[in-house]
Amino acid sequence: MIARPTLVLDTDKVRSNIRKICTKVSSLGLEFRPHFKTHQSRAIGDMFRDQGINGITVSSLKMANYFAEVGWNNITVAIPFNILEYDLINELASKVELRLLTVDANTIQQLDSKLNHTVKVYIELDPGYGRSGIPINDHDYIAQLIPVIDTLEYISLHGFYTHPGHTYKCRSASEIRNLTAPILENLLKLKQAFDLPVCYGDTPSCSVLQTFGSVNEISAGNLVFYDWTQVQIGSCEPNQIGVAMFCPVLAKYAERNELLIHGGAVHFSKDSFTPSGAKPYFGIIAEKNGDTWGEPVEDVIMSSISQEHGIISCTEDFFEKINVGDVIPILPIHSCLNADLMGEYQSSEGEILDHMNGKAFRV
Amino acid sequence: MIARPTLVLDTDKVRSNIRKICTKVSSLGLEFRPHFKTHQSRAIGDMFRDQGINGITVSSLKMANYFAEVGWNNITVAIPFNILEYDLINELASKVELRLLTVDANTIQQLDSKLNHTVKVYIELDPGYGRSGIPINDHDYIAQLIPVIDTLEYISLHGFYTHPGHTYKCRSASEIRNLTAPILENLLKLKQAFDLPVCYGDTPSCSVLQTFGSVNEISAGNLVFYDWTQVQIGSCEPNQIGVAMFCPVLAKYAERNELLIHGGAVHFSKDSFTPSGAKPYFGIIAEKNGDTWGEPVEDVIMSSISQEHGIISCTEDFFEKINVGDVIPILPIHSCLNADLMGEYQSSEGEILDHMNGKAFRV
Repeated sequence: MIARPTLVLDTDKVRSNIRKICTKVSSLGLEFRPHFKTHQSRAIGDMFRDQGINGITVSSLKMANYFAEVGWNNITVAIPFNILEYDLINELASKVELRLLTVDANTIQQLDSKLNHTVKVYIELDPGYGRSGIPINDHDYIAQLIPVIDTLEYISLHGFYTHPGHTYKCRSASEIRNLTAPILENLLKLKQAFDLPVCYGDTPSCSVLQTFGSVNEISAGNLVFYDWTQVQIGSCEPNQIGVAMFCPVLAKYAERNELLIHGGAVHFSKDSFTPSGAKPYFGIIAEKNGDTWGEPVEDVIMSSISQEHGIISCTEDFFEKINVGDVIPILPIHSCLNADLMGEYQSSEGEILDHMNGKAFRV
Repeated sequence: MIARPTLVLDTDKVRSNIRKICTKVSSLGLEFRPHFKTHQSRAIGDMFRDQGINGITVSSLKMANYFAEVGWNNITVAIPFNILEYDLINELASKVELRLLTVDANTIQQLDSKLNHTVKVYIELDPGYGRSGIPINDHDYIAQLIPVIDTLEYISLHGFYTHPGHTYKCRSASEIRNLTAPILENLLKLKQAFDLPVCYGDTPSCSVLQTFGSVNEISAGNLVFYDWTQVQIGSCEPNQIGVAMFCPVLAKYAERNELLIHGGAVHFSKDSFTPSGAKPYFGIIAEKNGDTWGEPVEDVIMSSISQEHGIISCTEDFFEKINVGDVIPILPIHSCLNADLMGEYQSSEGEILDHMNGKAFRV
């Protein structure tokens, strides 16, 4: 019985999400290198292995190491490398095919001088997101960088990497298609100019698009679980969300139709969704359905969150139905951060699945 | 040398913050029961012990246990108790003087029937914050609840507990005084009506007020570290902030005067501060000063954050001064969540200080 905030994983939904994207990418003849930053779990990694996945993507060297230890031997670390961690890069490169991201000539030359094992690099390109990478149209800069990499001793150029994270601002499949069409055109021009493999990915694009132009590799991650944000973006349906927080009700406040739960920012994160013209909220309450959950309950939201407390704003009907001591399922706004905080999963079969942040101390 | 995102603790500042509040509360003849949810650290707990503190406040049973194991034997768990965890309550009550919060007769009766060790309770009162507690003016409800508690076998009433968390909306010391004056009046009426001890606390009030009327106990927590939000509220000066994140610079983007750092939502949390009429930001950059940090750098902010990436928006001057591979100090928006995510501290003397979430896996 669940007695405290618990991240429950619906195994059927997660396996179905994995199967769906693996089938889609492989039927297009592309390589799928799923981003493991969402789940950070060896057990869930194995579900991808079952679908024939060999290469993966992670967001830190620490995470690369976590997966390397259980036999993943072809790993992209999808953030411009940290030159201060050259020793860890060297160590990992001695064990696996390590792929890094670079954006400038000076830093990649510095790294090369400190390596004694080979690594591959992607040149990271910014497709208009504005976070990281060389502007996707800046062929002159790219043309200067490639010959620098070609002269390096331990580092070889693999291709280009690009993450169109601005698809998260879309609110429908057609918006996603409209946003990504010019990016895919730019990637085609890049292929024509430089003839190198391109790795591309983000959950909205990879869920909605049916073709990816000249792209060779796909690296989305959130689609293993999805979450309420992805529903709003248009990437998935609510019944595809693969994880939910189960939280105990601590108190009822009839004067404001609100429930107090144990479940706060240290469990969910502070990520919120803000509907147009309304206040942000921090989770969506779902019907309980045996050991898992069913459909979202209309107009019942987690309206406020502090360190350990969450406030659920209810309809009168829902408020009447719930008692102190009940445990209610809540669909996360952002499943990656939710999982990162919880540090483990309880599967719908009652098993505990690992997470890299496995809590050292647990009551 | 710091090579990756690291939460640095300035020992002098933290000890000074602790000394200041301990002196203030004791000089008023009140009992200080500091909230340990901010630091969650036995080492930092010891700094409070050095100031003569005996009773503490925490936000979960797990945290109570973490501190009970090192000899803290008088602990308030400052959230309405979770009836589903009665076994843990029993276990803790067998070891320490455990104080819980209650808001309703039915649930406290249920708990009593499941206990075989004594616990004390506070009736939690809502001073207008709207999160948890019986409305502070609802003397009728309180008058009905007290005799119910008085009949219980293992549970005895200690007093009232109230947390005016809405002081976080204030933006100056005078706003804090104006907001809290009627709350303190209400607490006086409560004392006149029921003659029970009152525990009161939040960092803005406890930093700014010089007297607390009829209050007997104080339970603020964030003031051990403070953070940028507390500076904006008017609770402290920037040079009182006791922790800062040190993050390596991964890339420079000259076309937008932005730095990419390793440091994202999994390190800082997604908590942000939104200045009136402007966009939210996620941290304030400070000057480096030996092994610690100095003043905030004007107009240099962490403008955007994703899972592992942070974007620093710079002035031209600051942008020019910083190189890839530099490590820059960033003052947190919300130090409690920042510490909760980092799971340890590196003191200005280079020691590692524990946190309850001590990372099991570390590179």
